[in-house]
Amino acid sequence: MFQAINNYVARTIQLTPDELEYFNAMLEYKTVPKKTMLLQPGEICNFELYVNKGCIREYYIDSKGAEITLQFAVEDWWMSDLTSFQDQSPSIMYIETLEDCELLILSRNAKEKLLMQVPKLERMFRLMLQRHLSVVQNRLVKTISYTAMERYLEFLTRYPALPQRVAQHYIASYLGISAEFLSKLRKRHLKK
Amino acid sequence: MFQAINNYVARTIQLTPDELEYFNAMLEYKTVPKKTMLLQPGEICNFELYVNKGCIREYYIDSKGAEITLQFAVEDWWMSDLTSFQDQSPSIMYIETLEDCELLILSRNAKEKLLMQVPKLERMFRLMLQRHLSVVQNRLVKTISYTAMERYLEFLTRYPALPQRVAQHYIASYLGISAEFLSKLRKRHLKK
Repeated sequence: MFQAINNYVARTIQLTPDELEYFNAMLEYKTVPKKTMLLQPGEICNFELYVNKGCIREYYIDSKGAEITLQFAVEDWWMSDLTSFQDQSPSIMYIETLEDCELLILSRNAKEKLLMQVPKLERMFRLMLQRHLSVVQNRLVKTISYTAMERYLEFLTRYPALPQRVAQHYIASYLGISAEFLSKLRKRHLKK
Repeated sequence: MFQAINNYVARTIQLTPDELEYFNAMLEYKTVPKKTMLLQPGEICNFELYVNKGCIREYYIDSKGAEITLQFAVEDWWMSDLTSFQDQSPSIMYIETLEDCELLILSRNAKEKLLMQVPKLERMFRLMLQRHLSVVQNRLVKTISYTAMERYLEFLTRYPALPQRVAQHYIASYLGISAEFLSKLRKRHLKK
């Protein structure tokens, strides 16, 4: 149950067996069926999720009623609405499962206790945020300056397995294009 | 010289006088004239900057030759190209001073030593990244879904003093619009 996340930890810090046990005890293991809402607009996001198995996505509905997918998370990724988590402000995001999932949930309270007890974990969370920030900043640059085809190729590099796992319209809503246009891009890409 | 940054530290963690002294000793104080390049594409970003006084911006040139400003940093803000810093990969960014600046520079080597000696600082850097991530994610949402006027109002909230401090075309390149269009938005906003 904890093997993947313990490997994740071991890539950045060394915990004693006791510390690791405490860390694991702070995580809530949950199996969640496909298409379950984990967060909805107006709610305060009081958790960070680690995906043990499955696929989830974070999205919002813009003022024109369009769904915008901000990110996907598959095995070994974390997901949260950090703005809401940090400021304790109502979220504008939806977080939903796209497949049957096994999740490890770290609540805000548990995280605070955990970091008090095992301050070494600050480093792991810092490095996780650093990687995440780099991904989001990269996505911002691509959103501003890249063509849809360039964004699609970038998406394939970042999430190679996703096109086989999730419906195309989710990918289109991540790329900011229509499902029809994505279908054209895919055909053009396959011909190459 | 270190008063502002030490206040910054004190807002998240408590250091002993010795730890604080070590932290300050790891920072390089530098006065840099206006319009100095601190980072250019192709270079590896081996520093994080804290702005003691002045204003700097980070930008890149897109494939059509347009300047895109990613962020500004004024007093009490940090700046770096984290992707390059983290992956030790060549940057695509420019970082330049827009005013005469007093900067505190933390090199990658110094940061590593510092975090070994004073692991408490992991927490400060984690919280700094968390805020930064929230800002960038918010900017991504605004870039995808907001009108130019909404982005301008958001910009004024985030950087209230900047319109008086930097040339308008920098602000336009942050908002992703032409300087002429920004001028129209400003007039429309002032009329309200």
